[in-house]
Amino acid sequence: MAEESWPLELAPEQMRRLVDQALARILDHVASLPRQPACDVDGAAELARSLVERLPERGTPYEDLLRLLFDTAIPKSFNTAGPGYLAYIPGGGLLHSAVADLIADATNRYVGVWAAAPALAQLEANVVRWLGEIVGYPPEARGVLTSGGSIANLIALVTARRERLPPDFLSGTLYASDQVHHSVQKAALLAGFPEDSVREIPCDAAFRIRPDALRARIARDRASGRRPFFVVGSAGTTNTGAVDDLAGLADLAAVERLWLHVDGAYGGFFLLTERGRRAMRGIERADSVTLDPHKGMFLPYGTGSVLVRDGEALRRAHSVAAHYLPPMQESRDFVDFNEISPELSRDFRGLRVWLPVKMHGISVFREALDEKLDLTLRATEALQAIDGVEIVAEPQLSIVAFHLVRPGLDLAGLNALNRRFLDRINARRRVYLTGTLLDGRFVIRICVLSFRTHADRMDEGLADIRSAASEVTG
Amino acid sequence: MAEESWPLELAPEQMRRLVDQALARILDHVASLPRQPACDVDGAAELARSLVERLPERGTPYEDLLRLLFDTAIPKSFNTAGPGYLAYIPGGGLLHSAVADLIADATNRYVGVWAAAPALAQLEANVVRWLGEIVGYPPEARGVLTSGGSIANLIALVTARRERLPPDFLSGTLYASDQVHHSVQKAALLAGFPEDSVREIPCDAAFRIRPDALRARIARDRASGRRPFFVVGSAGTTNTGAVDDLAGLADLAAVERLWLHVDGAYGGFFLLTERGRRAMRGIERADSVTLDPHKGMFLPYGTGSVLVRDGEALRRAHSVAAHYLPPMQESRDFVDFNEISPELSRDFRGLRVWLPVKMHGISVFREALDEKLDLTLRATEALQAIDGVEIVAEPQLSIVAFHLVRPGLDLAGLNALNRRFLDRINARRRVYLTGTLLDGRFVIRICVLSFRTHADRMDEGLADIRSAASEVTG
Repeated sequence: MAEESWPLELAPEQMRRLVDQALARILDHVASLPRQPACDVDGAAELARSLVERLPERGTPYEDLLRLLFDTAIPKSFNTAGPGYLAYIPGGGLLHSAVADLIADATNRYVGVWAAAPALAQLEANVVRWLGEIVGYPPEARGVLTSGGSIANLIALVTARRERLPPDFLSGTLYASDQVHHSVQKAALLAGFPEDSVREIPCDAAFRIRPDALRARIARDRASGRRPFFVVGSAGTTNTGAVDDLAGLADLAAVERLWLHVDGAYGGFFLLTERGRRAMRGIERADSVTLDPHKGMFLPYGTGSVLVRDGEALRRAHSVAAHYLPPMQESRDFVDFNEISPELSRDFRGLRVWLPVKMHGISVFREALDEKLDLTLRATEALQAIDGVEIVAEPQLSIVAFHLVRPGLDLAGLNALNRRFLDRINARRRVYLTGTLLDGRFVIRICVLSFRTHADRMDEGLADIRSAASEVTG
Repeated sequence: MAEESWPLELAPEQMRRLVDQALARILDHVASLPRQPACDVDGAAELARSLVERLPERGTPYEDLLRLLFDTAIPKSFNTAGPGYLAYIPGGGLLHSAVADLIADATNRYVGVWAAAPALAQLEANVVRWLGEIVGYPPEARGVLTSGGSIANLIALVTARRERLPPDFLSGTLYASDQVHHSVQKAALLAGFPEDSVREIPCDAAFRIRPDALRARIARDRASGRRPFFVVGSAGTTNTGAVDDLAGLADLAAVERLWLHVDGAYGGFFLLTERGRRAMRGIERADSVTLDPHKGMFLPYGTGSVLVRDGEALRRAHSVAAHYLPPMQESRDFVDFNEISPELSRDFRGLRVWLPVKMHGISVFREALDEKLDLTLRATEALQAIDGVEIVAEPQLSIVAFHLVRPGLDLAGLNALNRRFLDRINARRRVYLTGTLLDGRFVIRICVLSFRTHADRMDEGLADIRSAASEVTG
């Protein structure tokens, strides 16, 4: 009866058909990833314009929708799922997590309040605890899974504002290197700080914040009546993967009584590796840390996290009572996520992390991340051997930045040359790289973070870089 | 080769196995929903405690994980997916959206910047546009999909703060009825407003904000040097589904130069129905509106939205430039979601809404919502016929609130009686209801919003209410 009268309630065979047809398309898509161009957005504006439509009153056959998605819309994109994507911060897309979302969505339980699904909420709490173990946090630490690093950084900032500043907080000042991710400036804006509140501190030659410059700026701000309260250390900048001296920042933060937040959205999961732990020494002394499982754990987009060493600080910043909420449990053994985060109802994000970790164990992630570090070193060596190529940022994690140099060219000429260089590399479509500006210089980055990128693709990309270099310099 | 060396890269047959086994469990689960208890959390604390574990180094067989999820963890919960869930605001869990997430996760393209996946970003922009059509907004309106109503309300508030207050905004005051969702107070807290900034205005007998009290409070605040700037109208309160006089609020907001935000997280999609449109007349004059597709469109948890009539206001509140972002497209035809929202990388939420709407057309949603309104009226009539039951809040949308009255009982005695009444209803486990406090009175609510709730289950619930009433009064 149900399936006849209520079209949204699918009969079992309809559900099976939906999933089976989607899965067939997905399997084809994944199998074709190595052959797909690393980036293809030719004619995308016309395509997008042709898709504009008003709210449809009637339905369209499922097959037509799958065709539109898989044959037309998905391929016309930066191929963030493919092995050749070495641009920005590469995405992942573990199928395990896709299946976890299928389960979480279809069973649709609610984990934001512990009482509503205690066992599922515990699985998510386990995930948060694992992240705390990775950072080296004590058991009192608390954290939440977010949609990504931007909300994670915002939560950290709002928590620090509550802990370290009076209600009239507008004279509070924030410190970060000039390489910090722009979500920190955005968090400051959204949290209500005036426009000039984030002090961008200059970096050393390795793109790490300069402690002397930081100390000097804090002193100047205190002298002029501002309230320094928040310093961000980058555990892997987006531009070059630079890791600030986190132990040094922790010392400085202790002396200056600042909240130390470490943005490890890109780099944090390299803590699973020996080399990453060395680079990020001191991270466990931070007051809060952002880690993005949708980056360093290869998950699909949509899972970031923030951890706070003093878990009660998260609660103080986020608790508001309401009559219609179920009574929060008394025991401190359990966590009501809505009490320590800005969200009430939201997706059950924990399962997306839990399922792949439980299926494989963390060792498999560690090995994959070690491979990314190795690939970056391999790329760096190969780049150094190319005539005219100069490494601008040696890899600290899995990013290397480089450019072509040619005597006699001024900065504008050099930048134009390197933009052409990048275009030529990308025109081959086996890898997709992006550039950034470092001290006015346009440089090209290789960022290795896809679980699908291996030595074969890296070598193809390096061959393309070599040919492109001789084309533009020859 | 890949599947051997790199365990995270599954071979096609492994992927198929993952999905097939999960689907088999899901189909069983969905088929069993009518037989599942509406709520079962007996022994949940022990279960949760038994699940605590440290980061696993090695993996666990998939079958064991599915068994833990489907046999143990998922059933021990409020059954937010089932037909008997009439508590809080019921969840949905359309399988269409689960499949959409499977596709979005597995193909993992990035829609936060238009250039990165123009056609997919356009599908999400279509969804936002459809929501604007539902509200009656002009084409210049812009909006974003969020994880839920809390972030949506926060975005609206931050946007209004930017538009209506100076950088030193701490004297800004917000207005809402004393029935407003607590995410509004939370948004004020997170946006940096001092604790007493939200004025809770008393309601009339139908739990709607009293315009006279609102006007008086605004005048008093202005007289004392505060800056009134933001008023929230509820389009369906969580307690009783009350809809404020939105046209009246729009008039008042115009006169007082306030930003009018309408929180339609629960009730907004009833705009698809004739009765809903009548109740929410004037909503199109609001400066911003929150709608939660994971409520009124029956989606799985994780999809809210906020719409802003002047789309450029969203951009002004959220734009921060960064060198490493791809150039934002010039044309105003397209939208970079990261420029008008707090998030940069995040899940591709649009597909979750797009797929079910495209498959069925919106007419099917309209019919389902009309059914919920009908079921609520049916419940109200049946409740009125029960001896000793008094309706405390007549349905304005799909919530009715009631309690038992008994002469001679003081308030405490009456509340104790009604708590027993609620426990007896829920003990039958065919429906799960929750209570709330209205002017100190404990009342019981029926909220009809699951796409799986139909007349058969409602009648069973009403029978349980009747028996429970005679038990506790008899």
